[in-house]
Amino acid sequence: MAGPAPAAPVGPDARRATVVGTGLIGASIGLALSRAGWQVSGVDADPARLAEALAMGAVHATGWDPLAEITFVATPVAATPAEVERALAVTEGVGGLVTDVASVKGPLAGLMANPRYVGGHPMAGSEREGPAGASASMFVGATWVLTPVPGTDDDAFVRVRAVLASLGAEVVAVPPGRHDEMVAVVSHVPHLTAATLMSLAGGQAEEHQALLRLAGGGFRDMTRVASGHPAIWGDICAENRDAIVAGLDALIGELGVVREVVAGGDAAGLVGRLEAARAARRNLPDRLAAAEDLVEVRLGIADEAGALAQVLLLAAEVDVSVADVEIVHSAEGTGGTLVLVVEAEPAERLVASLAARGLTPSVVPLQ
Amino acid sequence: MAGPAPAAPVGPDARRATVVGTGLIGASIGLALSRAGWQVSGVDADPARLAEALAMGAVHATGWDPLAEITFVATPVAATPAEVERALAVTEGVGGLVTDVASVKGPLAGLMANPRYVGGHPMAGSEREGPAGASASMFVGATWVLTPVPGTDDDAFVRVRAVLASLGAEVVAVPPGRHDEMVAVVSHVPHLTAATLMSLAGGQAEEHQALLRLAGGGFRDMTRVASGHPAIWGDICAENRDAIVAGLDALIGELGVVREVVAGGDAAGLVGRLEAARAARRNLPDRLAAAEDLVEVRLGIADEAGALAQVLLLAAEVDVSVADVEIVHSAEGTGGTLVLVVEAEPAERLVASLAARGLTPSVVPLQ
Repeated sequence: MAGPAPAAPVGPDARRATVVGTGLIGASIGLALSRAGWQVSGVDADPARLAEALAMGAVHATGWDPLAEITFVATPVAATPAEVERALAVTEGVGGLVTDVASVKGPLAGLMANPRYVGGHPMAGSEREGPAGASASMFVGATWVLTPVPGTDDDAFVRVRAVLASLGAEVVAVPPGRHDEMVAVVSHVPHLTAATLMSLAGGQAEEHQALLRLAGGGFRDMTRVASGHPAIWGDICAENRDAIVAGLDALIGELGVVREVVAGGDAAGLVGRLEAARAARRNLPDRLAAAEDLVEVRLGIADEAGALAQVLLLAAEVDVSVADVEIVHSAEGTGGTLVLVVEAEPAERLVASLAARGLTPSVVPLQ
Repeated sequence: MAGPAPAAPVGPDARRATVVGTGLIGASIGLALSRAGWQVSGVDADPARLAEALAMGAVHATGWDPLAEITFVATPVAATPAEVERALAVTEGVGGLVTDVASVKGPLAGLMANPRYVGGHPMAGSEREGPAGASASMFVGATWVLTPVPGTDDDAFVRVRAVLASLGAEVVAVPPGRHDEMVAVVSHVPHLTAATLMSLAGGQAEEHQALLRLAGGGFRDMTRVASGHPAIWGDICAENRDAIVAGLDALIGELGVVREVVAGGDAAGLVGRLEAARAARRNLPDRLAAAEDLVEVRLGIADEAGALAQVLLLAAEVDVSVADVEIVHSAEGTGGTLVLVVEAEPAERLVASLAARGLTPSVVPLQ
């Protein structure tokens, strides 16, 4: 653990946030907010962990801040719904926003009708645990999923989104149910698979002790996540059971096909499968393009809840990264203009999708 | 590709080597040998690749060197046996040593009776391909397996081993058949699994385009090997079919158990499995300890082929790293003393194993 490094003092006008749960992710959010000049208060059921977060400057104070403009709930999945409810109640007086980082969104769907709550999930972290592994730059360049629903308040969404973007995250909007299916495929099932590969190797190493000395960089890369903290996985697998079971069934089925291809000596079939995997791997999305490649997509929207969210969900569906978003309300209060900053090249996909829904977006170069 | 960087000129007394196959591994061996002052000649069926290796200084000359003290065959698996035979013939006049880097040793077992050939396999590489990805330091700290058999000549083994150690590798002796079983577990099956996970995610991303944006560092780590060159895998899976099929069956079986644990909501069972995997992951062997922790194990050996190899195989079986090895022949030529430099702490395991076989080793501090 690093030595005490109390956060720099903040002025009386600093924006205020509460971080609930000061483990690896919560403490990283606290550090990132502190670096951006926020006044951060921390809450944790474990006094020692909270003291550690305070000592390292991830939070400036302890306890729920009723004046928090935004509260991040970063507790284990099972505890998240209750803490989100509490955060909504504690900050009701100031109309405080609430978001969370739980890796399964299904259990939170019932709360999403609240206009001040926007579900979230940063695709970041590490195999380390606790505040000692935290980093102010953990979210720079990372995808941070927000899960708006039709009832999500547009302005609340834009404000939460702006805070996450200010921490360096690339925000993607995905409906909560689909989020849970997706993370089963790219996170939960791979994690369980890494652990299973590691256990198989570990078991055989008991018989052949040199075996693990043959584990090269590829094996170390593949099993790194298996060195992470196991305790959170009971909840995750319980909460996202159906999607994980479906993902494991798909994986087992595909591995069975690979087994038959190998057993049958079908070299061409095998290489074909590996070529497809390689193409997919090389196709993993990069970070957002440089600013000169961005355009604004402008669009008139009705003044009704969820209009923005629907557009952002559509953008995610056609895989268009949204670098920035703004709502320009009309003076009459009967609607407004939505401004999305997106990459120039895929902007046409978004425009075509919007047009297919009867909307009439315009594209202008970034000013 | 880096610009031309011809190898530094070498003197007339330089040790000579040939590298057959100047792809990623062969060119890295060439670079590492060149840096150590060797005169390296290169052979490759692809003239462009050979020219690239020459231009980057991985080899000084092209063609088979009949004076090569050691020839490294670094071709694809299927081509390796024929090239090993050719290397043995070309360098017969100088009694040249031959080794290879093939990741499956079964097809080479028939050649291992030749006292000048010692099978090998460096556990190093990357997802890059061709000489452009080569590095002189690729083998520093990497495990390099040698696969001695009862007929292996002790002096040949010690000399090959010393060359590999001079490139920074940690040499481990494993019988060829067991090597093939082990790499199925820690390399071949994990590779096929990474590709399968990537294909599953890629397939679902066609439907849900945002899916791959949710792929965080863990997924990228796990699937990195899937971006490597697929062409070599047809051979590997054909040559090591039985061990790979057995490994896939074990993995599919274990994933089926995990699936039932998740489907049944057995959180404690799941966390228990992940705890075991974590313990195994944290138990992956580190690099060799610093020099102050080393001791010499001295042992009288009979002057018969394979006596050294048997001791080194025993060391690998009890997972004792051998940092250095030397044979001190007696003046009478009727035997000698084997000197192994090993880590002090596990040295006792080796001594006990040797004693159990009726041998009488002595342990002395490293001089």
